Amino acid sequence: MPQVQTSAASTAIGTIPSKGYAAGAASAQLAPWNFERRAPGPHDVQIDIRYCGICHTDLHFLRNDWGISVYPMVPGHEIVGVVTHVGDHVHKFKEGDLVGVGCMVESCRVCDSCNNGEQQYCHNGMTLTYNGAEKGTGNITYGGYSNNIVVNEDFVLRVSEKLPLEAVAPLLCAGITTYSPMRRFKIGKGDKVAVLGLGGLGHMAVKFAASFGADVTVLSSSSHKEADAKRLGAHNFVVTTNEEQVKKVAKKFDYIIDTVSSKHNDNFYLEMLKSKGTLICLGVPAEPRELHWYPLQFQGRVVVGSIIGGIAETQEMLDYCAANNITADIELIAMRDIHQAYDRMEKSDVKYRFVIDMATL
Amino acid sequence: MPQVQTSAASTAIGTIPSKGYAAGAASAQLAPWNFERRAPGPHDVQIDIRYCGICHTDLHFLRNDWGISVYPMVPGHEIVGVVTHVGDHVHKFKEGDLVGVGCMVESCRVCDSCNNGEQQYCHNGMTLTYNGAEKGTGNITYGGYSNNIVVNEDFVLRVSEKLPLEAVAPLLCAGITTYSPMRRFKIGKGDKVAVLGLGGLGHMAVKFAASFGADVTVLSSSSHKEADAKRLGAHNFVVTTNEEQVKKVAKKFDYIIDTVSSKHNDNFYLEMLKSKGTLICLGVPAEPRELHWYPLQFQGRVVVGSIIGGIAETQEMLDYCAANNITADIELIAMRDIHQAYDRMEKSDVKYRFVIDMATL
Repeated sequence: MPQVQTSAASTAIGTIPSKGYAAGAASAQLAPWNFERRAPGPHDVQIDIRYCGICHTDLHFLRNDWGISVYPMVPGHEIVGVVTHVGDHVHKFKEGDLVGVGCMVESCRVCDSCNNGEQQYCHNGMTLTYNGAEKGTGNITYGGYSNNIVVNEDFVLRVSEKLPLEAVAPLLCAGITTYSPMRRFKIGKGDKVAVLGLGGLGHMAVKFAASFGADVTVLSSSSHKEADAKRLGAHNFVVTTNEEQVKKVAKKFDYIIDTVSSKHNDNFYLEMLKSKGTLICLGVPAEPRELHWYPLQFQGRVVVGSIIGGIAETQEMLDYCAANNITADIELIAMRDIHQAYDRMEKSDVKYRFVIDMATL
Repeated sequence: MPQVQTSAASTAIGTIPSKGYAAGAASAQLAPWNFERRAPGPHDVQIDIRYCGICHTDLHFLRNDWGISVYPMVPGHEIVGVVTHVGDHVHKFKEGDLVGVGCMVESCRVCDSCNNGEQQYCHNGMTLTYNGAEKGTGNITYGGYSNNIVVNEDFVLRVSEKLPLEAVAPLLCAGITTYSPMRRFKIGKGDKVAVLGLGGLGHMAVKFAASFGADVTVLSSSSHKEADAKRLGAHNFVVTTNEEQVKKVAKKFDYIIDTVSSKHNDNFYLEMLKSKGTLICLGVPAEPRELHWYPLQFQGRVVVGSIIGGIAETQEMLDYCAANNITADIELIAMRDIHQAYDRMEKSDVKYRFVIDMATL
């Protein structure tokens, strides 16, 4: 009888027991929750989750800040762990492999973006690792604040054994989000790059930009992060409340990597760009960015948005990090300390990413 | 005695009589005015102005919409005419040559932008053809609504005799403003280009994009411009108030050339761009553009500003137009009809650029 090829989701029979932390509503706090995931299908990889990073997006989704949240919600999209089972048709992974899963677990695979390897820009919408609709079943996807996950092998990344696994987790979102636009614009030696916002994304942007050979400046509203910025690889530090310092960086940078998600004045930063310089927008402010024509047009400047990266590029980033010994600076926490971590994250009181040790679940 | 090289302005001795139309204040109307220009210095070209285009910018400047106007003001920066005198050191032009002058008549000549041939982005500020400060003297510059002009040869363009001179005038602003970003992004065969706003800039954008081999769509709020859009070279026409038609162009274009200067919803148009597509902003809305993170970032899209072009590129554009028989569609008016022309321009009632016949001055 001929084999009919169907998607992993639709051929999956049965479920596997999972446990994690979930919120039942926008108003609810995360709490322990037992649930079921699809059993791995022929193209699926089952992963025992070891660590999961905490992204500010998790909080946005939990609180339904964007009006697109579904509950119960198990957040988490900076996942690293160990393969415990592979489906019959899985070729890329085997039991025991170290792997990672980022912000997406599927895409349409047929649109121009998917064909270009940019699944994050899938025209039909990538399937988010959590708060997504599972392809085939439409079931809610559950993320990495849990003990296991089942993902089609094409959305699973290889992770090197050379790096501390817990510090690799944030690379799956904060890492690729900063790496991807830098590669898109071929940022490297000779480029003057400013990083705005020294948080989870910002500290990775500094590391990558420095690693690529760029001259890196951190822009910060206060001077207290200067030593740390330089430790991370920045060559210069500008206090944006200091008029003298700001004046000196007028028309200075080729690129500004803007990782700030709170409302801020883009025009102020545009003026720091050279002619035809580029503001790379990675933060997600709730309010629109208000761009005045003068700083945008009078120097032919560019504003570009970006989210994460494609699967192949994410793999490339992980391989680059392994080869160049790059990881995130993290604070490892126990699952039960998630609420305290969120409180501190909201105050930007984290250097620079919380990661949950899933052994504490 | 050794020759000391000084700027044209500072070596100019004496003045020449000029007449034109000027406004004495933001509240005043344009009226005939006799004034003096610097006599041509050794590097200067004196031009008998034959035609001058009317740009919407003229009205913004006259009314001091941007708070930077100085009076008396003689507007006009789409100038074509005939050389009547050249300074001793002028090499590029001779009496009788057909020439043009655009939006700028000087720049610092030493900054990175000037060194890159992008005088429009001069870090020290280009000298505007009118409402500028003359290099050396600081005198107000007076534009093309007049019988003559004196310009350093490096800011004078050669004009072909092959084209109707009056229809060349708008190329000096509307032409180069649309040509330059299309060349910057190498727009051509295989690109899907939309043009938003079918006015002075927009109609040139259609002509250039079609000439470069792109697939051209005009976006308009009503259907009455469709026939004309297609006559100008557009292949498609989308009525932006028609939901069905708008739905069909979601994620469709590589580039949108936005020539609209009134407030409009950029996010609506961003959604029409492919992944990583580019919105080229050429209009100058008084209000800021409000960009939401979702349409900007979720498809990695680009927003870029641009103004006119460098001198070499302007010459390239004029030569391209001569070789490809491209000019603006104009309505030729007498100088005395300027007020009526402004009234009609404000209602977008012009196909597609008013040009003043200076013989009527």
